[in-house]
Order: sequence, then structure tokens, then C-alpha cells
Amino acid sequence: MHVFERRITVEWGDCDEAGIVFYPNYFYWFDSTYQAWLRQVGLSQRILQSEYDAVTPLVDVGANFRAPVTYDQEIRIGVRVVQWQEGRFKMEYQVFNMDGVQVASGHEWRAWAKVLPGGKLKAAAIAPGFRQRLEGGGAV
Amino acid sequence: MHVFERRITVEWGDCDEAGIVFYPNYFYWFDSTYQAWLRQVGLSQRILQSEYDAVTPLVDVGANFRAPVTYDQEIRIGVRVVQWQEGRFKMEYQVFNMDGVQVASGHEWRAWAKVLPGGKLKAAAIAPGFRQRLEGGGAV
Amino acid sequence: MHVFERRITVEWGDCDEAGIVFYPNYFYWFDSTYQAWLRQVGLSQRILQSEYDAVTPLVDVGANFRAPVTYDQEIRIGVRVVQWQEGRFKMEYQVFNMDGVQVASGHEWRAWAKVLPGGKLKAAAIAPGFRQRLEGGGAV
Amino acid sequence: MHVFERRITVEWGDCDEAGIVFYPNYFYWFDSTYQAWLRQVGLSQRILQSEYDAVTPLVDVGANFRAPVTYDQEIRIGVRVVQWQEGRFKMEYQVFNMDGVQVASGHEWRAWAKVLPGGKLKAAAIAPGFRQRLEGGGAV
Repeated sequence: MHVFERRITVEWGDCDEAGIVFYPNYFYWFDSTYQAWLRQVGLSQRILQSEYDAVTPLVDVGANFRAPVTYDQEIRIGVRVVQWQEGRFKMEYQVFNMDGVQVASGHEWRAWAKVLPGGKLKAAAIAPGFRQRLEGGGAV
Repeated sequence: MHVFERRITVEWGDCDEAGIVFYPNYFYWFDSTYQAWLRQVGLSQRILQSEYDAVTPLVDVGANFRAPVTYDQEIRIGVRVVQWQEGRFKMEYQVFNMDGVQVASGHEWRAWAKVLPGGKLKAAAIAPGFRQRLEGGGAV
Repeated sequence: MHVFERRITVEWGDCDEAGIVFYPNYFYWFDSTYQAWLRQVGLSQRILQSEYDAVTPLVDVGANFRAPVTYDQEIRIGVRVVQWQEGRFKMEYQVFNMDGVQVASGHEWRAWAKVLPGGKLKAAAIAPGFRQRLEGGGAV
Repeated sequence: MHVFERRITVEWGDCDEAGIVFYPNYFYWFDSTYQAWLRQVGLSQRILQSEYDAVTPLVDVGANFRAPVTYDQEIRIGVRVVQWQEGRFKMEYQVFNMDGVQVASGHEWRAWAKVLPGGKLKAAAIAPGFRQRLEGGGAV
């Protein structure tokens, strides 16, 4: 069960000479899907900063690739949070082609960090309102 | 009057430290819009090769920027062919934000080239069927 | 005569399915070459801001492509300022492969803009010290 | 002990609005470092195909990030193979800034695959010559 899904068209410029997706682009799509999810629940990087003085920097990421994806294919990316810790959360991504075949999966561990005056970051406990929004509890 | 239009969401990874679009991305979007237009008229880079033995390499490109575009904004890109020559054609792109303000424009001159055995390219006259399709004459 | 030159290796991820450079990357390289030139004369985007309260946003850019460049090739990019106006300057780029063949050229018109409190930009006359540095007059 | 090392300058276009590297770029650099290592031992994607009929597609990748890296910083990426299996091998990457602080690490599991007529890939045992070259045994 994914909380949020997004479709992406694989563009010419996303593929390499072998005719398949150049793999760093999967992470661009993971990040974009996270951002789109934030938008859907009324958040964004800017709102995180203005409302919570916080950012969600990446700590650990990964992906595995099961089947090639090529130019002009459409893919579907589903995302959900599979783990909440005090100061970090793990997003899980699953990528399917239009035949329903899973072509890739991945994860992002993101930390919660306060932005101090001057711009330095400081680890902090995740704001409860943020978690509630991503879990579908609506705006808090 | 644009023959084809496409909406794009500006992603976090498309922007630079100044918080605005890192400009090479406009060209990625121009190219993607061209490819999406090809799809709409039943073409693609692959079909160009299988049906016409041809590719459409870039010869000359340009863009000018009138207003900044930032993360999370949606933009609308319109494209049409403004000039047909024997062996090349000029695409004109216009980019608007969701307030209807034109934020950028650009062009791509693309040549028509035959792919010779071995992969070398050779300039050639544009296939009439290609032009008809882009001009809305339907499949030929 | 180029005031500044830089070598770049064309990477696997820079090329498309046709095995040649995906063209928006040329603009990434133009911008990188400009930034490297700034570094060489003791400047950077950050120093422009701290020393001059200024940024150099793009106004108009272009490129033309004469010969394909492929994965694993090295290229040489030369840059100089070919025109100075009160509030903008034009950079000209020339790109050569290692056989000395010119494969591309391009330009960037950059404006000089003051960063106002709040982040808005305001067109302004180019600081004389900036021009002197790029023209080799050393630090001012 | 790294078998191969490479320096990279973090460019303006590599960073996001927060002023730090947009993380998919680390994978672009991992891949580029692998390719540069191939070059150093007389190989390349093209030679792998012509000499071994083989490619080395990605199976699983990951990275973790310890400290932010910003525009204009130079980083040093070291790579070695930490595991050889019959049909796949694991590359480990370590990334340092110029103060010697480790800022990131990562891995790529790459498979060995034969390219069948028609372009399909088929898992196969790694060619002994390939392993010897990466282990410094010279050309075979």
C-alpha cells in the first residue's frame, strides 16, 4: 500500500548510450516524488523552513534495479514511510512499468534537522505535525 | 498559436543555490517537449530510425530568460515549427508560468540526417511525411 | 585568444542513446567554465555576493554544434568576454576536441544585478573591479 | 587502500537551493570514477563490448552522507572492488573533502552480462581478464 504515487515519462535525455535509464536519474525521481508528496499534503521545502525551521537532509539512500527501462516508457513510482525514528524516517520507493512489472525499488533515510541562525544544521526530533501530515492525518 | 504544449513541474533538483532554475534544464525541457510532440503524432526517435532511417540532430540552439522560475512552480511550454528548409527545421519554444507571464523563450534548429550503415550521419532532405505529421496532417 | 581554458572528459552519463553528448550538457560545461574562471581570478558566486552584493544572471544563451562528441573523449573549452555593456557582458565559448577540431561554440549574456534585501534582484552597472579581474588586471 | 582515485570539483549546477550537492550527483560521480578507472587500465564500455561482448549493468547501489559538500569545493573519490562473485562484483567508493574528512561513501554492485544478438542481455561469469585488469594484473 503506497501513500503516494506518481507517474513519470522517461525522456531521451535520461537514457545512456545503452538505451536504458542512466541510473542516478532514479534518485532524481525518488527525490521529486518525495517533493510531490509534500506538495500534496500542503508542504514544501520552503514551508518546512518557515513553519518548522527544519530541513530533511539525506542520510542514507539505495536502490536496486530488476529490469531495464528505456526512453519513452512511462513508469509509476509509489512511496511510503516504512520507519519512523525520533530524528529520522525511512521512505521506501517502488517503481513499476506500465505492464505492472516492478523494475526497481529504493529507499531514502532522511533526518530532521533544525536550521540554526547562520545556516548550520542541528539534529532534532521530528515535529509531530510533519509525521501526521505524511500519515494522512491532514494539516495540523 | 502553438501546435503542442506541455506542463512541467520545476523540481528541487532543477534549481541552483540561488533558488532558481539552473538554466541548462530549459534545454532538457525543450528536448523533452519535442519528444513528447513526436509521441503525440505517433513518432519517436526509434520510429524515425525504423521508418525513415533518419535522426534529427541539433545544429543551433538558443534561449533567453525574462523572469526567474523557482522550485515547485509549474510551467507551460509551447512549441511550433516556425521555419522549414530542405534539410533542417526550426522549432520555437515559449515558456509561461501559471500566471500567464512569459518567463523564457528558445529555439532549436534540427537537421534531417540519414543514418548510414556503420552509424555515420549524412545530411538529407526532410521526409515529406515527417513534416506533414508535425503540421497536423496526420499519419502518412 | 582565450583568456581562460578548461579540459573536460565526456562521461558515460553525459551521452544519449545515440552515443553522443546530450546537448544541454554543453551549457552545464559553459557555466562550469565561467565558474572555474571566476575561481582563477579569486572570485566565486559567493564572493560576488559578499564583495559586490551582486549576481550575474543569464539573459540570453546559445550554442551551435558542428561535430559529434562521444563518451570518453576529452574536450577543451576556451572562453573570453567579447562584449562589455553597462549592465551586461557577453561570454564566448569555443569547444575543441583533442584533434584540434572545433566541435561547438556558444555564448552567454550575463547581466549584473544587485541583490536587494529580501532577495529581489535589481539591474545595475557592472562593478569596475569585476571587469578588471576578468580582463587580467588582477585583484582590485 | 584504493586502487583508483579521482578528484572532482563541485560545480554550481551540482548544488541545490540549500547550497549543498544535490545527492543524485554522487552516483554520477561514482559511475564516472568507475569509467575513469576502466580507462586507466585500457578499458571502456566500448572495449568491454568489442573484446568481451559484455556490459556491466548496475544491480544494486547505495550511498550514505556524513557531511555536506558545497559549490566550489574539491572532493576526492577512491574506489576499489571489495567483493568478486561469479557473475557480479561490488565496488566501494569513499569520498573525502580536501581537509581529509570523509563526507560520503557508497557502493555499486555490477553484474557481468553478455550482449546477445538483438541486444538482449544474459547473465554470465565475469571474464578472468577483466578481473585481472582491475586488480592491477595488467592487460591479459
